[in-house]
Amino acid sequence: MANKSNKPDAFVTEITPQSQDFSRWYLDVVRRAELADYSPVKGCMVIRPYGYAIWELIQQALDRRIKATGHVNAYFPLFIPEGLLHKEAEHVEGFAPQVAYVTHGGGEELEERLVVRPTSEAIIGTMYAKWVQSWRDLPILINQWANVVRWEKVTRPFLRTTEFLWQEGHTAHETEAEAEEETRKILDLYKETVETEMAVPVVAGIKSESEKFAGALRTYSIEALMGDGRALQAGTSHNLGQNFAKAFDITFQARDKSVQHVWGTSWGMTTRLVGAAIMVHGDDSGLVLPPRVAPYQVVIVPIPRGNWQETVLPKAREIQQQLVAGGVRVNLDDRDAYTPGWKFAEWELRGVPLRLEIGPKDLEKSQVLVARRDTREKLGVPMDGLVGRIGALLDEIQQNLLARAMAFRDEHTQRADTYDAFKQAMEGRPGFVIAPWCGSAACEAQIKTDTQATIRNMPLDQSTPTGRCIRCDNAAQAEAWFAKAY
Amino acid sequence: MANKSNKPDAFVTEITPQSQDFSRWYLDVVRRAELADYSPVKGCMVIRPYGYAIWELIQQALDRRIKATGHVNAYFPLFIPEGLLHKEAEHVEGFAPQVAYVTHGGGEELEERLVVRPTSEAIIGTMYAKWVQSWRDLPILINQWANVVRWEKVTRPFLRTTEFLWQEGHTAHETEAEAEEETRKILDLYKETVETEMAVPVVAGIKSESEKFAGALRTYSIEALMGDGRALQAGTSHNLGQNFAKAFDITFQARDKSVQHVWGTSWGMTTRLVGAAIMVHGDDSGLVLPPRVAPYQVVIVPIPRGNWQETVLPKAREIQQQLVAGGVRVNLDDRDAYTPGWKFAEWELRGVPLRLEIGPKDLEKSQVLVARRDTREKLGVPMDGLVGRIGALLDEIQQNLLARAMAFRDEHTQRADTYDAFKQAMEGRPGFVIAPWCGSAACEAQIKTDTQATIRNMPLDQSTPTGRCIRCDNAAQAEAWFAKAY
Repeated sequence: MANKSNKPDAFVTEITPQSQDFSRWYLDVVRRAELADYSPVKGCMVIRPYGYAIWELIQQALDRRIKATGHVNAYFPLFIPEGLLHKEAEHVEGFAPQVAYVTHGGGEELEERLVVRPTSEAIIGTMYAKWVQSWRDLPILINQWANVVRWEKVTRPFLRTTEFLWQEGHTAHETEAEAEEETRKILDLYKETVETEMAVPVVAGIKSESEKFAGALRTYSIEALMGDGRALQAGTSHNLGQNFAKAFDITFQARDKSVQHVWGTSWGMTTRLVGAAIMVHGDDSGLVLPPRVAPYQVVIVPIPRGNWQETVLPKAREIQQQLVAGGVRVNLDDRDAYTPGWKFAEWELRGVPLRLEIGPKDLEKSQVLVARRDTREKLGVPMDGLVGRIGALLDEIQQNLLARAMAFRDEHTQRADTYDAFKQAMEGRPGFVIAPWCGSAACEAQIKTDTQATIRNMPLDQSTPTGRCIRCDNAAQAEAWFAKAY
Repeated sequence: MANKSNKPDAFVTEITPQSQDFSRWYLDVVRRAELADYSPVKGCMVIRPYGYAIWELIQQALDRRIKATGHVNAYFPLFIPEGLLHKEAEHVEGFAPQVAYVTHGGGEELEERLVVRPTSEAIIGTMYAKWVQSWRDLPILINQWANVVRWEKVTRPFLRTTEFLWQEGHTAHETEAEAEEETRKILDLYKETVETEMAVPVVAGIKSESEKFAGALRTYSIEALMGDGRALQAGTSHNLGQNFAKAFDITFQARDKSVQHVWGTSWGMTTRLVGAAIMVHGDDSGLVLPPRVAPYQVVIVPIPRGNWQETVLPKAREIQQQLVAGGVRVNLDDRDAYTPGWKFAEWELRGVPLRLEIGPKDLEKSQVLVARRDTREKLGVPMDGLVGRIGALLDEIQQNLLARAMAFRDEHTQRADTYDAFKQAMEGRPGFVIAPWCGSAACEAQIKTDTQATIRNMPLDQSTPTGRCIRCDNAAQAEAWFAKAY
């Protein structure tokens, strides 16, 4: 609920400063901006309308791109018979500890337990086995928007919850090369979407063996840096090889008449992206939303002086209509139970990119006062040509947020060539540390034990590294991006 | 999978004629048009891309209207602690036999079983109790797009499945009058959506006591007549009164400072609507899709004669681009493994409203041949002004389908004033039978036992009926629309 107090500061003081406790700051913002709320179900959150509206905008932007690259949406069952999950050995090993089981339905105990999907490779693979007969049926390029459940011990709104929302793409191809091309194409698509729409710069690369998806041949990810210098995995794209095809018997008659297993991929992004938007751009006053994913890009606050209801309010409504006609998402906050100051603080907290103030004096000058959320600049803008100016400002804010986040990431990315330098970097200013690594899981594990840092990924198209592994001093196989991560 | 045979008739003969067995015809169409498939999970279907695309178009049309009337979307947990479901006595009685229980999660047995939501009044009511304090917080107008689970013994794709997709609106209001207004407003919105977008005429009215939602004060519904004369409930809107508010303690401080319970509503439409579209418009050749919910409104089939790839194909692509630019959803079927005749049958089966044929002769005449799916008329249309003409034809088809369905319903709606006449009508040509009813559940139950017909609903704003109950001869309380129903 909105705070009913009329003291604007009541808001701000309720948010813990980032510098004091970033984690508390995050939870404060989620709660006060009404993005999400705790539910009576352990580990599950309620996504409130304002948070859901951000997710819907991300969804639309992503769905548009998924379709433009030839994929189609479909829907597969929530439940997976337990036996199906067991068909791919690594897959079940990875997910079994995390799943929820349905044991009773319709008043009876079930003969076979049902798993609430933690991901849908098993159920979708089963259907593909039925649908694919010939090379002519390939590729299959299907995406699904769905809820999934993974039991979590420690949860945090948006970032890690027992139930979450996501899209999961599942494709089947004739050749290994096509599957790899698809996996990389989606990685690029994810990177472009997150950077363009959410102004969140990401590093795209390949995961280490120990961090790859249970059952995959290779996993690629995009990794973003949060405002506290910790990394967040923002999306993953898996080349499944023929692992699931063999487990689920997805075969086809090839062009040469031989019977082959298909080559598969799967890939997903989740509601966790909302958390990324909060943690990359937010400040001590609350959210700072990139215009493209802001439920309201503009809030109009009329200043109630004199006979404002006859003068200011009609003008505010007129401006609202003009902006809406110009394709801008606008909220006119004409509630009379709240003061302008209270409204300023509320909409800052909620991260609205632009605030338009209109009072009797502005009317006289035929202008509005525009306040930017990102820079906090205030500028007078003539009514004449307002819509065009607002559109340009929104573009500018979107660019500025991306540039700011890029600069922050660059400032918080260091290189280390020795283990001492690496440990020092990890203890000091948090962020990414790029370091040569020999490729062994043992070194990776020891580095994690010593420093809490994990390999986020290894950017693609590296030249062969010349250095030596920071941990064991053997020849490096890759330059890895390490960070402490969510 | 598409049938790989090149004989066009191979398609059609695989579909059982409606007159022979409507139910088989329905299942044949669902399977052959690749709308849905059976899954390895009992009672759960897979919605295949073509079926899902129809659902997405319905969703978009409905979501737009839900938002335009001031509602916002949100997301609540899939799981409901068993105890919460038990708080409203009628509600749990209605749903408990149908629910699925999660008993284990994260490798442990749960302390309290979780219900997989059959509907979300319980979990949403719990949150509203937390969010609502003052009359200023009202109304709450929230909608959710989600999957729900109701254990079903007999299932049928789209019409009745254990898991299905839907939207569920849940609102809370200050006064009884406002809640009733909301309930009716949504009923009207549902009727308008289904008639405008799906060309499916519906009867809007109030349900009898015995057919109302478990826990509601009053339930309203829209009812459509399928091609076999059986009725289908296409949407429901419930006035919950204060039942859930009392069960979940949703109170607020009223304007007069007294503490009151909110007045609630809930309402939903589901993937069952896809089934309605199939059964209202389909014919022995397969689907007939209303243009507004057709994934492809136009299919272009180039006729492969002479050097068609240098002449016909480029023109076909040009037309496709023009139509897409004009906002039309178009598929250019340029696959060379299939003959035109095979393609004609396939796209008829899939219900595409307009087929454009282009061959060398059409190029000479600077025209295309257009075939309407609804009337099967073929007409030559000049390339000049093609986009405008296609748009007009699509509108015409949409109107024609609605008019045809209206006429069918009118022809299959009879009146009966005596029980003999009623029984005769129910045994004869199937459809709606309008009859006076005394309002007693006993008569309603007896009529169902005798004839299998149930009261679908009682249209609103009836004048007081003068007749006598067909069953008991007491004074009628209402004119009820009876039918055998899905």
